[in-house]
Amino acid sequence: MQKFAILVAGGSGMRMGSQLPKQFLLLKGKPVLYYTIRAFLDAFPDVQIVLVLPEEHLELGKEIVDGFFDQSKIQLTGGGETRFHSVKNGLKLVDRESIVFVHDGVRCLLSTQLIHACYEKAMETGSAVPVVECKDSVRMLTEEGNEPVDRALLKFVQTPQTFHSKLILPAFEIDYKERFTDEATVMEAFGLKISLIPGEDTNIKITRPVDLLIAEQILDSKTS
Amino acid sequence: MQKFAILVAGGSGMRMGSQLPKQFLLLKGKPVLYYTIRAFLDAFPDVQIVLVLPEEHLELGKEIVDGFFDQSKIQLTGGGETRFHSVKNGLKLVDRESIVFVHDGVRCLLSTQLIHACYEKAMETGSAVPVVECKDSVRMLTEEGNEPVDRALLKFVQTPQTFHSKLILPAFEIDYKERFTDEATVMEAFGLKISLIPGEDTNIKITRPVDLLIAEQILDSKTS
Repeated sequence: MQKFAILVAGGSGMRMGSQLPKQFLLLKGKPVLYYTIRAFLDAFPDVQIVLVLPEEHLELGKEIVDGFFDQSKIQLTGGGETRFHSVKNGLKLVDRESIVFVHDGVRCLLSTQLIHACYEKAMETGSAVPVVECKDSVRMLTEEGNEPVDRALLKFVQTPQTFHSKLILPAFEIDYKERFTDEATVMEAFGLKISLIPGEDTNIKITRPVDLLIAEQILDSKTS
Repeated sequence: MQKFAILVAGGSGMRMGSQLPKQFLLLKGKPVLYYTIRAFLDAFPDVQIVLVLPEEHLELGKEIVDGFFDQSKIQLTGGGETRFHSVKNGLKLVDRESIVFVHDGVRCLLSTQLIHACYEKAMETGSAVPVVECKDSVRMLTEEGNEPVDRALLKFVQTPQTFHSKLILPAFEIDYKERFTDEATVMEAFGLKISLIPGEDTNIKITRPVDLLIAEQILDSKTS
């Protein structure tokens, strides 16, 4: 089966206190996006990468692609107003029956195992969304105040959110709604049940300066 | 009003891959517990600290107290089987009408402002539990599968969980139940409504080796 990986890197990275969006920051001398692209190419050498970047950063993205990768495997396209619109732009380049990974560009540490597990599950059920356990005490606001939540029932959603093209392409024809915070919520609006699979604690998002330090530690522990 | 801070440090720190429990690990040359005790003494010079440690680490705790602090302000006592039992042991030393802070020994970076805010709220309503926002997409397991949760309604619970002694002392006379994951759940079993206040993203728990790195960064940003 064909594979497409839509890497969404639309955020402008204001939280980093840095001019450069976080997907371009350097982690051990290479841009965060380099590691993300590398992870998918390592897992599936035949994957087609679709890199969705804000218009103003397409040039910078192109430099990373040209500098590090076989350009025939990677296409670039501009991002939209929201994540939904960015993914929708990326999906325009999915021109064959395939498994489609939608992944946060700033989650650069996912493993080959996770990508393979998402692929297998999406082949089997149409969808695969990796989730990790909740380790904190959690409360939920209610009309009367707040109450504890059984944390064993709560799961944190990661990416790659992975779907069969036959499902994700028609699902994204829907009109945008504010509650579409990720791909799974769009797919549910389309009537799909979401299959969850175990994610990875190391599959973190680089959103704060300290995350680069954590990422460095995780990289070191992988290679040692 | 009198103040007691019960610092619960009962965990054996197995997750750290280190012999030494995590509250004793060094952060910029001083034990994690040093910073936690310091935070309460800085916020309220008249606070009485009750340090609850596993029996086998009481000696080590005493060394930190003797080395860094005025011993008249700090009492030590042994921990129990669960957090509930450890807190209950600590409460035995609360001998006056007071505001009681129950705090994770490994949350060593809380600010004076947070401690003061907890005190004010507990004076006013009897309770104060600091919580922070949820930034991830979250799903909840249901009987039919799983569904998205409105993350605006979810709050992560931190400490110090703060209560008036008139409420927390009788509440902890209750028999232990497994669902008592923190002090708030015990107080609710006693019939109390819990007041939430904004916590701090920097009020992290030191539970993994990488948390020491994060804590160092937070300390640096506070002093710079």
